[in-house]
Amino acid sequence: MGKGELTRQAILEHAVVLASRVGLDGLTIGRLALDLDLSKSGLFAHFRSKEALQVQTLALAAERFTEIVIQPALTAPRGEPRVQALFDRWLTWPREFRQPGGCIFVAASAELDDQPGPARDLLVRLQRDWLDVIAGAVKIAVAEGDFKKSVDPAQFAFETYGIMLVTHFTFRLLRDPQAGERARQAFSSLLAAARAVPS
Amino acid sequence: MGKGELTRQAILEHAVVLASRVGLDGLTIGRLALDLDLSKSGLFAHFRSKEALQVQTLALAAERFTEIVIQPALTAPRGEPRVQALFDRWLTWPREFRQPGGCIFVAASAELDDQPGPARDLLVRLQRDWLDVIAGAVKIAVAEGDFKKSVDPAQFAFETYGIMLVTHFTFRLLRDPQAGERARQAFSSLLAAARAVPS
Repeated sequence: MGKGELTRQAILEHAVVLASRVGLDGLTIGRLALDLDLSKSGLFAHFRSKEALQVQTLALAAERFTEIVIQPALTAPRGEPRVQALFDRWLTWPREFRQPGGCIFVAASAELDDQPGPARDLLVRLQRDWLDVIAGAVKIAVAEGDFKKSVDPAQFAFETYGIMLVTHFTFRLLRDPQAGERARQAFSSLLAAARAVPS
Repeated sequence: MGKGELTRQAILEHAVVLASRVGLDGLTIGRLALDLDLSKSGLFAHFRSKEALQVQTLALAAERFTEIVIQPALTAPRGEPRVQALFDRWLTWPREFRQPGGCIFVAASAELDDQPGPARDLLVRLQRDWLDVIAGAVKIAVAEGDFKKSVDPAQFAFETYGIMLVTHFTFRLLRDPQAGERARQAFSSLLAAARAVPS
């Protein structure tokens, strides 16, 4: 990785912190330059436009999400343990990758739902990919006999994502310290309903 | 209701439409004046500040939410039917009260989580009230013997809210027309797990 690429990544790490607090729309080259005490022209050389900055910020966050959440979870044994690992790793995400304003993807989802463009397109692709990762692990758990054959992997992913969203909401808006515990309980009920009855 | 109050309500109805699209932060007296072809000074006479406008917009949406979702559901019989009615009415909410950018409360939740002030305080109170309404109906369903004694009403409300959030997300961001069907299926699983086994 060259020096330019390292600089670009360091800038984008800070852009994630900023976007988590002020939203992707508040993430401008001017604001980022002020925050990092860099010249606007220097940042323009890296990103060219606010839109490119937003897209690259989401892409960097997605890379980190893969490293922090998905890759470690995929080392868990196939079946229910891997489904559980995806959820457990997800719970650590806003801490392990510093996002003081909460998960950048949740914030961006509310912000971009009405804003067509490359940032929205990327976000939709990333969120679909994440739902597919969960559904894929569930499909394996069905094939391994851990889950009932009647379990619909896409429905399971939908319900898991609901638990993630309400956990974020309960923690960030309501400042309820029980959010993590409620999340674990909700997911454990979801697993219990999916689990195959030993024959 | 006097003419002044009618005007104020009509302005606020439009403010909800606008906030649903551009967020509460985009809801300014100037923008609203432009949209409604009214004078800024006239609007200032009604609302005094952007903050007051935001608070009154949330308060009006909450009044409508009570009329459209909560009141009709509370006429359903005590027990599981009332819990189901709260969910069914909630599904109709973004259509019955026009919010072209999706539910104003969901949008505001993501937006205000980091912004202390009267709008955030009101939103937190409203969201807690709504969770309490769901939990209250669940408590009655337990008392009526429809739900198991082991059901935790606050946990049930948390999980219901998760289904609502992911439904909104699936419909608004992913534009997935299956969102409503997935929501019903998720809620039906939640009910099945809570339901008392007939003795």
